[in-house]
Amino acid sequence: MDYIKILKEIQSEISSLYTKGEVASYIPALKDVKADDFAMSLTLMDGSYYSVGSDDLKFSIQSISKIFSFTLALETYSKKIYKRLGVEPSGDPYNSLAQLEYENGIPRNPFINAGAIVVMDALISNFKDTDITFNEILSFIKKLSDNKNISYDQIIAESEIHSGYRNLALASLMKSFGNLSHDPRTVLETYFKMCAIKMTTKELSRSVLYLANDGFDPISGFKATSEQRAKRINALMITCGHYDASGEFAFNVGLPGKSGVGGGIVAVVPDKMGICVYSPKLNKQGNSLIGTKALELFTTKTGLSIF
Amino acid sequence: MDYIKILKEIQSEISSLYTKGEVASYIPALKDVKADDFAMSLTLMDGSYYSVGSDDLKFSIQSISKIFSFTLALETYSKKIYKRLGVEPSGDPYNSLAQLEYENGIPRNPFINAGAIVVMDALISNFKDTDITFNEILSFIKKLSDNKNISYDQIIAESEIHSGYRNLALASLMKSFGNLSHDPRTVLETYFKMCAIKMTTKELSRSVLYLANDGFDPISGFKATSEQRAKRINALMITCGHYDASGEFAFNVGLPGKSGVGGGIVAVVPDKMGICVYSPKLNKQGNSLIGTKALELFTTKTGLSIF
Amino acid sequence: MDYIKILKEIQSEISSLYTKGEVASYIPALKDVKADDFAMSLTLMDGSYYSVGSDDLKFSIQSISKIFSFTLALETYSKKIYKRLGVEPSGDPYNSLAQLEYENGIPRNPFINAGAIVVMDALISNFKDTDITFNEILSFIKKLSDNKNISYDQIIAESEIHSGYRNLALASLMKSFGNLSHDPRTVLETYFKMCAIKMTTKELSRSVLYLANDGFDPISGFKATSEQRAKRINALMITCGHYDASGEFAFNVGLPGKSGVGGGIVAVVPDKMGICVYSPKLNKQGNSLIGTKALELFTTKTGLSIF
Amino acid sequence: MDYIKILKEIQSEISSLYTKGEVASYIPALKDVKADDFAMSLTLMDGSYYSVGSDDLKFSIQSISKIFSFTLALETYSKKIYKRLGVEPSGDPYNSLAQLEYENGIPRNPFINAGAIVVMDALISNFKDTDITFNEILSFIKKLSDNKNISYDQIIAESEIHSGYRNLALASLMKSFGNLSHDPRTVLETYFKMCAIKMTTKELSRSVLYLANDGFDPISGFKATSEQRAKRINALMITCGHYDASGEFAFNVGLPGKSGVGGGIVAVVPDKMGICVYSPKLNKQGNSLIGTKALELFTTKTGLSIF
Repeated sequence: MDYIKILKEIQSEISSLYTKGEVASYIPALKDVKADDFAMSLTLMDGSYYSVGSDDLKFSIQSISKIFSFTLALETYSKKIYKRLGVEPSGDPYNSLAQLEYENGIPRNPFINAGAIVVMDALISNFKDTDITFNEILSFIKKLSDNKNISYDQIIAESEIHSGYRNLALASLMKSFGNLSHDPRTVLETYFKMCAIKMTTKELSRSVLYLANDGFDPISGFKATSEQRAKRINALMITCGHYDASGEFAFNVGLPGKSGVGGGIVAVVPDKMGICVYSPKLNKQGNSLIGTKALELFTTKTGLSIF
Repeated sequence: MDYIKILKEIQSEISSLYTKGEVASYIPALKDVKADDFAMSLTLMDGSYYSVGSDDLKFSIQSISKIFSFTLALETYSKKIYKRLGVEPSGDPYNSLAQLEYENGIPRNPFINAGAIVVMDALISNFKDTDITFNEILSFIKKLSDNKNISYDQIIAESEIHSGYRNLALASLMKSFGNLSHDPRTVLETYFKMCAIKMTTKELSRSVLYLANDGFDPISGFKATSEQRAKRINALMITCGHYDASGEFAFNVGLPGKSGVGGGIVAVVPDKMGICVYSPKLNKQGNSLIGTKALELFTTKTGLSIF
Repeated sequence: MDYIKILKEIQSEISSLYTKGEVASYIPALKDVKADDFAMSLTLMDGSYYSVGSDDLKFSIQSISKIFSFTLALETYSKKIYKRLGVEPSGDPYNSLAQLEYENGIPRNPFINAGAIVVMDALISNFKDTDITFNEILSFIKKLSDNKNISYDQIIAESEIHSGYRNLALASLMKSFGNLSHDPRTVLETYFKMCAIKMTTKELSRSVLYLANDGFDPISGFKATSEQRAKRINALMITCGHYDASGEFAFNVGLPGKSGVGGGIVAVVPDKMGICVYSPKLNKQGNSLIGTKALELFTTKTGLSIF
Repeated sequence: MDYIKILKEIQSEISSLYTKGEVASYIPALKDVKADDFAMSLTLMDGSYYSVGSDDLKFSIQSISKIFSFTLALETYSKKIYKRLGVEPSGDPYNSLAQLEYENGIPRNPFINAGAIVVMDALISNFKDTDITFNEILSFIKKLSDNKNISYDQIIAESEIHSGYRNLALASLMKSFGNLSHDPRTVLETYFKMCAIKMTTKELSRSVLYLANDGFDPISGFKATSEQRAKRINALMITCGHYDASGEFAFNVGLPGKSGVGGGIVAVVPDKMGICVYSPKLNKQGNSLIGTKALELFTTKTGLSIF
């Protein structure tokens, strides 16, 4: 398939959408991005790589990081992690408290905020120390993307710490139900550092390749997780990867994917490739508007939907 | 692959589970089934067929019928049907009123009861008459399964009409929001007739083959829907096909599927086959307990998950 | 106290509000009222009577009737009625389904629609027949108001039967939970007939006098209920009499009261008088806008709040 | 009336209930009370005083303090305070997050925790400093009870700070909606200090006398608030004073009242007296089990219900 041609078509077809959507405003430091930046990268199983746009632009990966921390938690805790969170779509926004209260502090899945906060709490318990925990996550991501030049944006992390009161509400509520071992602020500080990690679409498309390849990176051979877990992470991405727009994403795109409020979306074509697209303006559900459309065009043009 | 061997292994491995689960009790007439009946059928693209158990036993297809009525509604109304229902997982049981009230009478998706009632209402508007509507659905199913010997069980249909007060509540609530054109009782009578259609696992495994094959039956050539719609129905099945256990089904089985409270589950392996399994005892979420396990064993043994 | 002077002041002070609010539109036949009609009546314990406005105008009493049917149900079932409904404010609109679903079909109190439907169901069980039930309620109201010239408006009753789908949803949901003995439609028909009873402010101010006087009418001597029950009905009116504006009514008016969507509100000054005010335009919560204001002015001017 | 005789009857009649209910366990330091302590005090308008039991025992007033802080906030902010909280019963437990989320961070009323936290935030804004704010509240209570010997229990206050994660969730959620000016922890520290104030039933029965007397203390002449505000605080107590048991309290007791999880309940008989009862074991809704019963017996025996 002529991927470059397809990517260029997509780049051209989405250009009419630059006026739509809104850059995330609730994290002050996230506002300082160029609203019309765009990049899309494909990394195939054999290592071949295709892209359009600013594929060397580092952006805030935000919730995309939840894939990596959850993979680590599965390696650490295996099935025991499911005592503390579920695998069902929430049917609610990513930060809903009502459902969490009704369900006694057990988050629906690892990809809503509450779930990812529990995952972080579990990792801190395992690694004993917040700095070590953060470094373990970062070094896991470096291995997955075969790239040592990855770090986090301290200004964004602190910006979230100071304004993340809804996340503090989620963490405090879970703490009151006994589903958090550490102090809510402590967990959130590490969580926000992880969300503030910056990567390019190139790096991200590579870093999810293990999910297309039964758990190990086909280029470096790094084994991140087992085949069964890789499949299950993909399943979770398709049912829960886009909050209350997960159904729509499965419906229109047809690939396991995970979005971040920084404007990135990663997607996985099983047995074929990792994909990442970036465009910072978001739709109403908080997912990259152009990114979602670009992926829809991609599966329409290539027939590479999993369905 | 030696499908017969695999099916026999599955039949043997699930045998320890016959004591678990409960036959649906809320539809009185459904209780009269043999609790330890089991059947599993595969129909492949080339027409080859494999089965174990009582694959000629007719059982009540119940909510599996929602796939067929929704396909018909898409053919009739195209995208306009999405003004009246969504494509998101509900995160709630199949018959929740709270969410429907909060969302002004617009059901989350076509596979929860409220959504399927709206679909039926739309079909009645199109075909003008309830008998004609039912016959159109029935004849659509006959074409899909290439089998004229399919009918509904009047006793079960009437049993539901007399006890289906929660469905009456759903329909009445949608009517109060203006999302139902006909009288709630009228729509429900036809809806319950459709749910009371009886089929075998053999017939059902064939009848979903169009969803594995871009919208048309590969054996008869009957075109049921477009390629894009077939993919989207598959996407809806994976995110919404098992009510508030949809995430778990995607997670454990990894195939688009749809369950019915009568004990049947259909599943689709894109480009490969249609599957149906039957066992009447249900788990807590109202899906066949053994059926779910059998499908999980199937994808584990064959690696045929879509992920 | 110079009640006539006070009533005239009120009539003058509320005149600037005639442009505000909306006549109830969901019951088609209710729309045919004169939007600027107003009446206010006081009946004192010694039988003295004061009024302003059209106090001989018959209007649809609607939910005010719930006081009378609940009093009858208490006489019939005593405390047993509380197995089927509660005594707590709902904190939700009068017709909410979410709470009713969450609380397994047990309505919060007898003054929200679900509660009054359960009360009607209980009365039908007691009197065996819907016509007899309706006649018992009507004759109870006739005795309370010492007036035989009271009947219901058939057109309004039928108008509600045909459009009352939300009430049908409530009744069906309770039926599905086993908290309704009769068919939902049957109960609703009698319920809507009761709501369609027409009375004047004069008649209504007299008919609630038993609640100001420990359960019996001080003029005729008719004993409607016990002292304790009369006090408890007053308590229920102050906490639950105005749906999700009950707190505001207690706060601003400070009297036990019950509103109807037809534009009437009754209120009780313990040991002193029964009050009724009428004005058909409603505020957002579905209570008479001018009626509420008139009562607030009344307690401010007279100091007759219970607090 | 022979109040001493009545109080002794009550003391005798409630003695069979000492085995029921549970002492609050969520605040660790609150557990260290004698479960069978009991006291009941009446302070009449003319200063006469009646009591049974340990009326000089200091206990943790907890949520009873919300009356005093709210009165102060009304004096400070007048109607403007209602931009930040409502006057409706919540229909939910005292610490529900779901409703607060659904209603965009505006608490239903000043007597649920979220509302009292907003009141504290407003007072801190007014008095500029948390210590000054606490001292103003304490000195207001001293004036109301005409008693300088009132202080708070530091161990209980700190115990709440360390375990009050659900309150931290409420405060954080309101902060995220912009309905809190100060840091959640800062507001909660002062709030928990206020809740940890210790008083006797004698002091508390006197301190609410202003609510029975149009806003000023009839003995000392201290004017705490206006007549209208006093009536409205009473109205709020009857509709919202006992969380999701407010309806039941109005129904069974028939007086404005406010409970605290420390085991105290205050009640007001307009124009007659202030009441306080203490017994630390709580019913399911978190109100003193014996205290509630004692007040019910009191109004039954004296006929002093407001209805």
